[in-house]
Amino acid sequence: MTENTEKRAAWIWYPGDYEAWLFCKCMAQRRERDVLITPFWRMDSHYVSVKFYCNFTLEEPDEITVKVDGDFNIFIEGMGYVKNFDGKLRLPAGSYEMQILVTNVPELPCVYVCGEQLKSGSDTFRVTCQDHVFLPAAQGDFFDIDASPNKRVKKTRELAPVSTEQIGSGTLYDFGKEISAYLELRGMKAGAKCKIYYGESREEALDTEHSEQTDCVFSCGEESAATAVTKAFRWAYVPQADAFKELIALEEVFETENKGRFSSSDKLLEKIYDVSVYTLGMCKKEFFLDGAKRDRWAWSGDAYQSYLVNYYTFCDSDAVKRTIRALKGKEPIKTHINHIMDYTMYWVLSLFDYYLFTGDKEFLAEMFDGAEGYVKFLLSRTNADGFLHGYPEDWVFIDWAAIDNRGETSFEQILFAVTLIRFAFICEELGKDGSFYAKKSEELLKRTLEVFWVDGRFVHRRENGVLDLAVTRYANMFAVLFDLLDEEKRNSVIEKVMLNDDVQKITTPYMQFYEQATLAKIGMHENVLSGMKAYWGGMLGEGATTFWEAYDPSETGAEKYAMYNRPYGKSLCHAWGANPVYLIFNCLLGIRPREVGYKTFLCEPQLNVLPDFDCAAPVGKGTLYLKYDGKIFTARAEKCSGYVKIPDGFVPEAETGGRTAKFGQKDGKYFLDEAEKITFVKREGEYVF
Amino acid sequence: MTENTEKRAAWIWYPGDYEAWLFCKCMAQRRERDVLITPFWRMDSHYVSVKFYCNFTLEEPDEITVKVDGDFNIFIEGMGYVKNFDGKLRLPAGSYEMQILVTNVPELPCVYVCGEQLKSGSDTFRVTCQDHVFLPAAQGDFFDIDASPNKRVKKTRELAPVSTEQIGSGTLYDFGKEISAYLELRGMKAGAKCKIYYGESREEALDTEHSEQTDCVFSCGEESAATAVTKAFRWAYVPQADAFKELIALEEVFETENKGRFSSSDKLLEKIYDVSVYTLGMCKKEFFLDGAKRDRWAWSGDAYQSYLVNYYTFCDSDAVKRTIRALKGKEPIKTHINHIMDYTMYWVLSLFDYYLFTGDKEFLAEMFDGAEGYVKFLLSRTNADGFLHGYPEDWVFIDWAAIDNRGETSFEQILFAVTLIRFAFICEELGKDGSFYAKKSEELLKRTLEVFWVDGRFVHRRENGVLDLAVTRYANMFAVLFDLLDEEKRNSVIEKVMLNDDVQKITTPYMQFYEQATLAKIGMHENVLSGMKAYWGGMLGEGATTFWEAYDPSETGAEKYAMYNRPYGKSLCHAWGANPVYLIFNCLLGIRPREVGYKTFLCEPQLNVLPDFDCAAPVGKGTLYLKYDGKIFTARAEKCSGYVKIPDGFVPEAETGGRTAKFGQKDGKYFLDEAEKITFVKREGEYVF
Repeated sequence: MTENTEKRAAWIWYPGDYEAWLFCKCMAQRRERDVLITPFWRMDSHYVSVKFYCNFTLEEPDEITVKVDGDFNIFIEGMGYVKNFDGKLRLPAGSYEMQILVTNVPELPCVYVCGEQLKSGSDTFRVTCQDHVFLPAAQGDFFDIDASPNKRVKKTRELAPVSTEQIGSGTLYDFGKEISAYLELRGMKAGAKCKIYYGESREEALDTEHSEQTDCVFSCGEESAATAVTKAFRWAYVPQADAFKELIALEEVFETENKGRFSSSDKLLEKIYDVSVYTLGMCKKEFFLDGAKRDRWAWSGDAYQSYLVNYYTFCDSDAVKRTIRALKGKEPIKTHINHIMDYTMYWVLSLFDYYLFTGDKEFLAEMFDGAEGYVKFLLSRTNADGFLHGYPEDWVFIDWAAIDNRGETSFEQILFAVTLIRFAFICEELGKDGSFYAKKSEELLKRTLEVFWVDGRFVHRRENGVLDLAVTRYANMFAVLFDLLDEEKRNSVIEKVMLNDDVQKITTPYMQFYEQATLAKIGMHENVLSGMKAYWGGMLGEGATTFWEAYDPSETGAEKYAMYNRPYGKSLCHAWGANPVYLIFNCLLGIRPREVGYKTFLCEPQLNVLPDFDCAAPVGKGTLYLKYDGKIFTARAEKCSGYVKIPDGFVPEAETGGRTAKFGQKDGKYFLDEAEKITFVKREGEYVF
Repeated sequence: MTENTEKRAAWIWYPGDYEAWLFCKCMAQRRERDVLITPFWRMDSHYVSVKFYCNFTLEEPDEITVKVDGDFNIFIEGMGYVKNFDGKLRLPAGSYEMQILVTNVPELPCVYVCGEQLKSGSDTFRVTCQDHVFLPAAQGDFFDIDASPNKRVKKTRELAPVSTEQIGSGTLYDFGKEISAYLELRGMKAGAKCKIYYGESREEALDTEHSEQTDCVFSCGEESAATAVTKAFRWAYVPQADAFKELIALEEVFETENKGRFSSSDKLLEKIYDVSVYTLGMCKKEFFLDGAKRDRWAWSGDAYQSYLVNYYTFCDSDAVKRTIRALKGKEPIKTHINHIMDYTMYWVLSLFDYYLFTGDKEFLAEMFDGAEGYVKFLLSRTNADGFLHGYPEDWVFIDWAAIDNRGETSFEQILFAVTLIRFAFICEELGKDGSFYAKKSEELLKRTLEVFWVDGRFVHRRENGVLDLAVTRYANMFAVLFDLLDEEKRNSVIEKVMLNDDVQKITTPYMQFYEQATLAKIGMHENVLSGMKAYWGGMLGEGATTFWEAYDPSETGAEKYAMYNRPYGKSLCHAWGANPVYLIFNCLLGIRPREVGYKTFLCEPQLNVLPDFDCAAPVGKGTLYLKYDGKIFTARAEKCSGYVKIPDGFVPEAETGGRTAKFGQKDGKYFLDEAEKITFVKREGEYVF
């Protein structure tokens, strides 16, 4: 939402219904060759019949335009139904109670009302799905009477291939990097029919038997023909190159710009950042999707990480809210979100984080019933020991790895303990009593330690009362990351799991994320930097222009593109590949909300670990600019304020100019007020890197 | 469903979803002049994404046609997704597990599968809305691959007006009786635009300012133009008669035929029967609607009576099930059905009756969760005294009358006691323990008697602990009708309420129904016959061709058409006007199920009350033919059997021929076996009428 919405009439709808309706639409974008694949979880579309209410007073006569998507009527208290309605209400001065009842099965029921004195918006209209609950109507960025949410179209721009190559009778087009685009074939011969094979890798595009994405374009008498659905690809191969003159991509335009920035003379690190941002941009469409080629679905656990990266890049709160709302679905809650037990919990955590980063209590309140519903659903599925365990229909995911998740896993209990305590916090923030959930969390953690803590670390699982002594990183690192252990246990986990190469390695960026964040948590920032450069740098070394769903450095050749028993099954542009942005900004630059909604920030840059850098981080409604040349570090706050904590070995520069004289040290941290600058200089010889 | 469905491939869908989708569509037929009015209760449409499952074995290779409404894919276990699908699966002999995932927001997701060996149907496919619950797929009367449920069209036939009359510059068309129809204007002048004013009464059609239904038909270059939505009317007035040559009605065809029959030399009684059947036929469209002109909505309490009449006429179980399913809606239950407290209870009672008349336990099981949900919802809304009372958002209807329903009404408690005991019966029939509900019923009745029973009858209500001593018929007659009172109390109610003209009279056929049925219950069959002839006969005297929503004999002139503060607001073709059919067949001919599903019938004709008659009653899958000429009574059973109980004064005829010798008397009743006939003769002089 833009800031001056109160002055413009907006299309309005039932809260959550735009998301529900759009979700159903967008989840139908996944294709495997010509096969359309929609999700295997229940999708709830919009309420088909909703009623809008508005009480308003006209100081003088007004002519009010009303436009509605759907069958509708207008009722004015005391006047009855408006008959012979011609699109405009002409009303004398006075006070009115108006109702607009809209019924629309195929599309989103929505309304636009615009007079001189009355304009539709969340502040003026309430709405009900006719269950006796009345909510403020929802609105978004739809202010044009002729462009309702139902008429939403993707924005695109033309993009020519960077190179073409004749291969057999066909042509291979290379767009230089992965893009999401329609393809348009121009100058087609009449009646021509062209097959297109897409590739995230060159190999995939040319392997026409196995490429995951294909299209078939017909010329129906017209000179040019375009594909119906965008595809994600770098390469496109068209075997019948003589059937048309030119191939052009209509590339989807990123809807929001990166509000962050990071550059460094360490070009590998800079590239990891750039490619991460680009990868997330490719996967952030109407919702935060898992991958650009596949699945093009919103998965709660994947989205959880995307939100975190988003807070340091696009700051697209609307997209976060859209995704959270859509994943929530409607009542009744009958299954886990995405059918995955862990993903229900990440959904609750994502709500916590959204609030932490934005301070948007209104959304927290909007989602509260859903969140409580899911937490109760989780509690309803614990066993006599209080442990979560997979029901036959549940998917206990944790990670793509050779792990056995049958029975009770320590990871799910740890994640649930975190979920419960964070939900208790949400309760308290909304003025509700969260102690029940806090106590549940405490009990669960206690029981988890009693059962799964063996020989100084968590074992992975128990089944039918029998412990499996296999150890994995998951529960252990989460317990450290979310501060659930005392110092002794924490150190034990660090030694016996985190730094133990015998424990199975993680091969997805998804869990690499938590592992690196945990290393940062325990102060091993060097390892984060080197680990990130090795892992994500490794993908760049393979020619990646976007980061992958999974990466195992030991795989060579086309083997690295295979997954799910398909030679090109792996997504090479996967949202969870983008998380180095978070690792850099949150874990190494140490920028995070110190108080809810960035009322104040905290910035703890690891200057003894990081190379030189020049960066900007979105912080609330402002920006924090950081610059470091290896010797001098400067932080400048614009429309934000907070605390900077600098490593030993740095001292405030005496002569920094501007208003920097004002800052002072509190609790070992320097307070940086709005529009201030602070500079530190490395004390030569005192710190050896 | 026809009987040989197992041999034909049928369109299949998620159970209840055809009804949900169709309901949303049909509830948008109500119009007040040009204003479209959809219901003010929550409507739930179909699940937008459902997956069908089928395990099948082909003895030999088969070519299987698959047609789907919606986006879809086909997955075969071991073979994966079917690629390059061209409408047919060509499969070798073998065993298969097939899944068809269908996503369709605007329309009903449905599937048609037809091979030589595999045909889609409830018996072959299961389906889930992806909530881990798998149900047999639902099917109906859709066997044509090119005519899916989404392509359903109304059947019509041409009907010319019976007379026309020039009035001013316009023409008034009279169709002789009320019909539901589109109007087509033929031979229209190019660019002509004709307004149409409809009337259930002549007055309404000519009162162009106030007629409830209007249309405006444009000629878009074509010679003829038709209205978009059917209207219910007898008269149509077109002011601009020179703009076209001919007006013709396209009358909706009743979808099912009357399986009953009733004739008599008492022509008034015969006409009451005929007009009743016609009235119900007019209101039985895709669902049992309240009225043909208005509201054209399914109201649970209205439908409850229609179902009962239906069991003696159209026997359209599919329409009953469609209406019950649609009214149930989807989870979560947040409001009363139609927002009316009584109507939630009638919904449960209608399920009981449907089972009683049809013996369809499968449907009982299908609806069980919903029924239990509503009963629990009702229980959740009782107060500390265990009484139901209207929440601010509830509508406590009872009847259209000058009654005060605030606080706790005795009627709602009595209706709830009946609901609880009948739901307990439903539980037991399904092998579940119903004792909890039976006990609740008993307790509620006890408390109701303690509080509302004053001076030998129920007073109407209590508010804030203070009894209102006003007495109405409702609770009193229901308590008698549903056998809740001991003999002393019953007699007291008869004397102090039923036969007491000081108690406010009933002016709707709706509650007349229960009153007449109660009179029959207490043996006052003469009063039922005379009351029916006076009340419904009164409407016929007013020229009614269909029975009305309300009728007060004291009203004269156009006053009788007014309701809801509108001069023609009253519906003159209202389903609840049709209930004389039930009064004749159930209460006077005494035909009803003696055992569930008419395993045996009971027939207790009031031969000392009724005039001569010749009739047929649908009884289970058979028919019971009754004939009486004032002296000789004959009953003949075709494909059914049961008991005939004859009044004193009649004796079995010695010479009846056929197989009648076989019948014998049991428990004071004569058993009539399948294909038997039984004849009784009135003993002259022994009984004086």
